[in-house]
Amino acid sequence: MDKMMKVAVLGASGYTGAELLRFLVRHPHISITALTADRKAGQAMAEVFPQFTGIDLPRLTTIADMDFSDIDFVFCALPHGTTQQVILDVLDRKPGLRIVDLSADFRLENPDDYALWYGHPHQALSLQHEAVFGLTEHYRSRIASARLVANPGCHSSTSILAIVPLLKAGLIDPDSIVIDSKTGMSGAGRAAKEEMLFSEISTGVHAYGVGKHRHTAELDQEFSKAAGRSVTPSFTPHILPMNRGIYATLYVRMASGVSAGDLHATLSSVYANEAFVQVLPLGTAPQSRHVLGANQAHLGVIADRMKDRAILIATTDNLVKGASGQAIQNMNVMCGWPETLGLNAVAVFP
Amino acid sequence: MDKMMKVAVLGASGYTGAELLRFLVRHPHISITALTADRKAGQAMAEVFPQFTGIDLPRLTTIADMDFSDIDFVFCALPHGTTQQVILDVLDRKPGLRIVDLSADFRLENPDDYALWYGHPHQALSLQHEAVFGLTEHYRSRIASARLVANPGCHSSTSILAIVPLLKAGLIDPDSIVIDSKTGMSGAGRAAKEEMLFSEISTGVHAYGVGKHRHTAELDQEFSKAAGRSVTPSFTPHILPMNRGIYATLYVRMASGVSAGDLHATLSSVYANEAFVQVLPLGTAPQSRHVLGANQAHLGVIADRMKDRAILIATTDNLVKGASGQAIQNMNVMCGWPETLGLNAVAVFP
Amino acid sequence: MDKMMKVAVLGASGYTGAELLRFLVRHPHISITALTADRKAGQAMAEVFPQFTGIDLPRLTTIADMDFSDIDFVFCALPHGTTQQVILDVLDRKPGLRIVDLSADFRLENPDDYALWYGHPHQALSLQHEAVFGLTEHYRSRIASARLVANPGCHSSTSILAIVPLLKAGLIDPDSIVIDSKTGMSGAGRAAKEEMLFSEISTGVHAYGVGKHRHTAELDQEFSKAAGRSVTPSFTPHILPMNRGIYATLYVRMASGVSAGDLHATLSSVYANEAFVQVLPLGTAPQSRHVLGANQAHLGVIADRMKDRAILIATTDNLVKGASGQAIQNMNVMCGWPETLGLNAVAVFP
Amino acid sequence: MDKMMKVAVLGASGYTGAELLRFLVRHPHISITALTADRKAGQAMAEVFPQFTGIDLPRLTTIADMDFSDIDFVFCALPHGTTQQVILDVLDRKPGLRIVDLSADFRLENPDDYALWYGHPHQALSLQHEAVFGLTEHYRSRIASARLVANPGCHSSTSILAIVPLLKAGLIDPDSIVIDSKTGMSGAGRAAKEEMLFSEISTGVHAYGVGKHRHTAELDQEFSKAAGRSVTPSFTPHILPMNRGIYATLYVRMASGVSAGDLHATLSSVYANEAFVQVLPLGTAPQSRHVLGANQAHLGVIADRMKDRAILIATTDNLVKGASGQAIQNMNVMCGWPETLGLNAVAVFP
Repeated sequence: MDKMMKVAVLGASGYTGAELLRFLVRHPHISITALTADRKAGQAMAEVFPQFTGIDLPRLTTIADMDFSDIDFVFCALPHGTTQQVILDVLDRKPGLRIVDLSADFRLENPDDYALWYGHPHQALSLQHEAVFGLTEHYRSRIASARLVANPGCHSSTSILAIVPLLKAGLIDPDSIVIDSKTGMSGAGRAAKEEMLFSEISTGVHAYGVGKHRHTAELDQEFSKAAGRSVTPSFTPHILPMNRGIYATLYVRMASGVSAGDLHATLSSVYANEAFVQVLPLGTAPQSRHVLGANQAHLGVIADRMKDRAILIATTDNLVKGASGQAIQNMNVMCGWPETLGLNAVAVFP
Repeated sequence: MDKMMKVAVLGASGYTGAELLRFLVRHPHISITALTADRKAGQAMAEVFPQFTGIDLPRLTTIADMDFSDIDFVFCALPHGTTQQVILDVLDRKPGLRIVDLSADFRLENPDDYALWYGHPHQALSLQHEAVFGLTEHYRSRIASARLVANPGCHSSTSILAIVPLLKAGLIDPDSIVIDSKTGMSGAGRAAKEEMLFSEISTGVHAYGVGKHRHTAELDQEFSKAAGRSVTPSFTPHILPMNRGIYATLYVRMASGVSAGDLHATLSSVYANEAFVQVLPLGTAPQSRHVLGANQAHLGVIADRMKDRAILIATTDNLVKGASGQAIQNMNVMCGWPETLGLNAVAVFP
Repeated sequence: MDKMMKVAVLGASGYTGAELLRFLVRHPHISITALTADRKAGQAMAEVFPQFTGIDLPRLTTIADMDFSDIDFVFCALPHGTTQQVILDVLDRKPGLRIVDLSADFRLENPDDYALWYGHPHQALSLQHEAVFGLTEHYRSRIASARLVANPGCHSSTSILAIVPLLKAGLIDPDSIVIDSKTGMSGAGRAAKEEMLFSEISTGVHAYGVGKHRHTAELDQEFSKAAGRSVTPSFTPHILPMNRGIYATLYVRMASGVSAGDLHATLSSVYANEAFVQVLPLGTAPQSRHVLGANQAHLGVIADRMKDRAILIATTDNLVKGASGQAIQNMNVMCGWPETLGLNAVAVFP
Repeated sequence: MDKMMKVAVLGASGYTGAELLRFLVRHPHISITALTADRKAGQAMAEVFPQFTGIDLPRLTTIADMDFSDIDFVFCALPHGTTQQVILDVLDRKPGLRIVDLSADFRLENPDDYALWYGHPHQALSLQHEAVFGLTEHYRSRIASARLVANPGCHSSTSILAIVPLLKAGLIDPDSIVIDSKTGMSGAGRAAKEEMLFSEISTGVHAYGVGKHRHTAELDQEFSKAAGRSVTPSFTPHILPMNRGIYATLYVRMASGVSAGDLHATLSSVYANEAFVQVLPLGTAPQSRHVLGANQAHLGVIADRMKDRAILIATTDNLVKGASGQAIQNMNVMCGWPETLGLNAVAVFP
C-alpha cells in the first residue's frame, strides 16, 4: 500500500483516545495526522501520556483549530452528549469523511429511546438514522459500507456477544435474563472526581447506576431485535478495584429441552471463524485478566445445578474489544482491510 | 468480672484464626489460653502473624499436645472435613466445653444434604443434629443455650440476611432468586496454591465453583425453611482482586403488588434493633469497603426499572461478620454477655 | 470518670478526620461534640463516610457556625497554610482550648525555615513558638503540658523514630543518611485530582516531590537537634498502589567500630517500654501490612554486606501512627490518661 | 525472508516463558517449534495460559522428550542452578544452537563470584567463560556474534542502564551509590509459595533479601568494569503490590563540579539512538506504569537540594526489558535483524 490513510483522533487525552493510539501507531496502513484535546491543546502526547515518549506524534490541538481537509478517517472519543453536535459539524465541513464514534450518541436507533435514556432530544437525527451499530461480528456487512459507525458500549457489547445468538436461535427465555456486569475503573475515564480516587476504589466493590444504567438501552435494543419481541433484561454494573475488564455473568433459563451444551454448541458455531471471539470449553469460566490489553472476547457456558438454568460468562477488556480495539476493527472493515490488522496483540498476563 | 473465661483457638495460623485473635486480645472477659497450629507448632504467633508483635500470647502447639482441662471455650478454625472428628474427640475429652466451629462441618442439618454436597457421610451425626446454625440475628435464642454452634459460610450468611426476612414475609417469588456473590481472596485461606498467587489475582476477576459451590447448600436450607417450601436459588461466587469483602447482588421478582419500598420497610423493621446490620436508605447501593474490618452487614434495596423486580445488595467483611466476628458475636450470646462486647470496631476506610 | 471531655474535629470530611473518628467514637473518656467540614456542612457523617452508619454523631457544620463555648479539646485536620489562621482565631475565641493540629503549620520551630519551605511568612508566630512537636516517644513531657501540639508528618515521624536515637548516640555518620520513603495514597487526602485517580495509581509506582518534599524540613530539624549539628538527609518519597502505609528504607554508614547489632541494641533499649514502637529481631525486614490500621511503628535493623553500612526500616500506617492515632496518643498524654486508651486496635491483616 | 527460524522455549509455563511467547507469536521471522514445561507436559499452552486461546502453538513437552534436530534457536527460561546443566547438555546434543538464557547461571564472569553468591561451584565453566552479558545497549557487538547470551537480571539491568555511563564518564563517586529498587510480584515467578499469595502482598510493601540479594553480584561486576575499580553499591529490593515493574531510585554523589544537568546530558547522549531507552526531561520522575508491557526503559535525572547529590530513577517492566523483551532484543541482534522487530508494542496504560 503506497498511500497511508490519514487519521484524526478527536479526544486523544482520555483513556480511549490513548488506547486508540496504542494500536494506531503500529497499524501498517494509517498515518496519525491530527490529535485533539481541547483542555490540553498545545501539549505533546508524551506529556499527557508518557508511554508515547519517543514516538513521533502530532501535537494536541483543539477541534476548532483543526484542519479536516487532508483527513480521511476520524475516531471520535469525546464525551456523550456533546459528540452529536461535533460530528454534525465535522461532516458538514467534510461530508466524505468516515467516522467511528466511541460515544453513546449514535448507538440507539429509536429517537424516543435516546430522549428517554439521555434526557433530551437528539440533536442530529439524520445521522442517528444513518449510523450503524458497530459490533463487527453482528453487523459486519453494514459496517463495511457505513460512513458513521456507532461503537457500542463496553458493558453492552460484551453481553450482546453472549446473548444475541441464543435469542436468535430461540434457546433461552427472553424474560429470564439477569446480567451482573463487573468492570474496572478505566471505563469511567480520566475525569477528576472524588468517587474515582484510588483510595475510594482500591479495597472494595460496589454497584452503580442500579436499575438505570444507560447501557441498558443498548441491551434492550439488540436483545429485542434478536428475539423479535421486546426484551428488558435486568442489568446491574459494578466497579471493581482493577483498571481494565468487563466481566458479565449472565443468568438465563433455557427453553424446554435445551441444555447448556446446546447453548455452547450454538455459540461455538456462530463464532467459529471469528478472530476476536473465543468460546472456551463447556464448563469453563473465563477470567478477565486473560483478555487484558487484547482485542478479544472470551465466552463461557456453564450448566447450573437446576437443569433448566445456565450461566453464561463473557469477558473483554473495556478499553479494547469494549472500545478502542473494537473501533479499529470497524475501521479495518470499513476500509476493506484484513480485520485483524494492527489488532493481534496477545493479552498481557500476568 | 473477676474470672476471665479461658479460650482456645484451634487453627490459629490461618486467616480466620488470626482474625479471631485480633478481636479476642481486646475482649474484656476472656483469657487466650491455648493456640494450635499443627504445622507451625512451637512458633510464636508474632512469627506467623507479625501484627501480634508486642502482645503476650501462648506459643502455638498441636491439638494432640493440648490440655483441655482448664479450657472453657473453643473456637475451631480448622479445614472442612477434618473438623468433625476433631470436635468429636474434643467433646469426648471434655463434654462441658462450648464450641463455635467456623468450618462447614456442622452447618447442614440434614445428613443426606451433607453427604451429597461433601461427598462422604458425616462422621459425627449426633453432633450434627445438636449443632445450631450460627447466624445470631436469626437464631439468637437457640444459640444462647447451645453447646456447639456452626458458624455459617461467608457467602451464605451475607445473602441470608437479605433474603430470609423477605421469604418469611412472602414478599418475593422463591423461584426467582439469582445471587451473584463477589468476594476477596482472604476467604480462600492461607494455603499456598498457584491460583491464589498475587500475580494470578491482582488484575482481574473470575467466577469459581459455578453451579456447584458448597455454600449453595446453606442457602437452600435457610431459604427453604424461611419459605416453607423447597427453594433452590441460582448462586455464583466470584473472586475479586481485593482481600476482604463479600458483596452479594441479589435479583428477585416480587409478589404481586409488592414494591421495593415494601422490601426495604420489612428489612428495616426486622433489623431495627440489631447492632450489626444496617439497612441503608432505599435506593442506596452499599460498598464493601465501608464494612472492611468491622462486624457489620450493610443492606441495600433498589428498585429495578421493571416494577416487579428489585435488586438487593448485602455486604460484609468475609473474615468478620462472615467468619470470626460472627463467631465472637455467638460467643457473647452463648455467655450471656452484651452482644457487642469486643466487637464495636468501626470499619477501616480508606 | 463521670464527665466526658468534649471534643471537636475540624475537617472531619477528610481521611485523617474520618480516621480520628474511627478511634474517638470508641474512646472511653471523650464525647464528640462538634464536627466541621465547610464544603459538606449540613450532611451527616454517615453520608460522607458510610462506615459510620448506625453511630450517633453530630451533623457536619462550618467552623464559622461552630460554638466553641462548650468544647474542651480540638483536633484540627485542615489543609496546610490555612490552618495557622484558623487556630489563631479559635484560640482567640477560647484561649483555654487544647489543640492537636495535624497540619504542617506548626511543626517547624524556626520561622525562617517555615518561610523557606512554605513560600510565605508564618501568620501566627507566637503560636509557632509555643507549639510542641508531637512525636510522643521523643517529646512526651513537653506534650503533657502543651496547649498546642503540632502532630508531625507521616514520612518524617516514621524516619525520626529510627534515626534520632542513633544520631543522639553518635552511632551513625550524619552526612550519610539516605531515606527512600514509600507511601500509600491516603496520605494525599480526598481531593479530586487527576493524578490521584485509581487508574493513574493502581498498577505502578513513582517518586514525587523529589529533592524538595516539605517533610524534609522536619527531618532536618529533628535530625539536627539530635546530632547537635546541621544534618541534611537525602529524602525521596514514592507513591505505591496501596491505601495505607509509610515504609522508609534508611541507608546509613556507621561510625567506626559500630555494628548493625549496636544500632539494634540502642533502638531496642530506647523503645523497650513503648507501647507503640516495636523493634523486630535483628535482621528482620518489617512489612507495612502488619501495622495497617494500628497505632504502631515496626522498626528493623539489617546489616549490609559492607561492614560499615546498615539498612534501617521503619513502617507505620500513615493515617494512624503517622497522623490520627498519633494525635490521639498526644491527647491522651495532654489529658494525663493512659497513653494507649482507645488506641490498642491490632493491625488488620490480611 | 522465506525460511522462518525455528525456535524452542524451554520453561514455557512460567511467567517469563509466557511473556516470550506473547512477543514471539507475532514476530515475523520465527516459527515456534517446541515448548517445554516438565511438570505440565502434555498440556496445551491455552490450558496453562488461556490468553493463548485461539493461537496455534505446539503442545508442552519435557526437555528429555524434545528433539533439537530441527531447532535453530533456544530461549531458556528455567530456574537458576539447574539451567547450567541443561544448557551444557543441549549444546552437547547440538553445538550449533544459539541460546539466550534468562536464568542467572551465566551472568557472572568470575567463577569465584558465582561460587560465592550461589553457594556451589559452577557446573559448566567453559560456557560461563563463553557467555556474553546480554544488556544489548552495552554489549551489542559481542552479542551479535555470541552463541550463548546471559540475559541480565531485572533489577540489575535497570540500574546498570542508569549508572554505568556515569561511572564510565567519571561523573559520580563510585562509593556513594545507594540503590533502592522496587518490583512487582511477577518477577518471583509462578511458584506456589505462601509469601506470594495475593492476601500476603496486596495491601503493603516490604524489603526482601536485604544486604544479600544475588542481583548485587551483577551490579558489582558491571559497575566495577565501568569504573575500572571495585564498586560495591548498597542495593535493597522491595516487593510492591503490583504485578509488573522495576523502579530503581538511585542516590549518588557527584564528582566535584558536576551537576545533575551533566548527568542528564551524558545519559541523553549515550542513549540518543537507542529505541528502547528513553531519557525523560531533566527533573522528571518516570512512572513504572508508563513502560508496563513494553520493551522500554525510562530514565530520569533529578537534582537534590544539596548540590553535590543527585537522584536517578530507572524503570522497566521486569518481564519485558527486564527479561523476555530483552531476550528477544538479543535474538534480533544475534540474527542480524532490526533490533525492534516484534518488540515495538506501546506500554499498556492505564
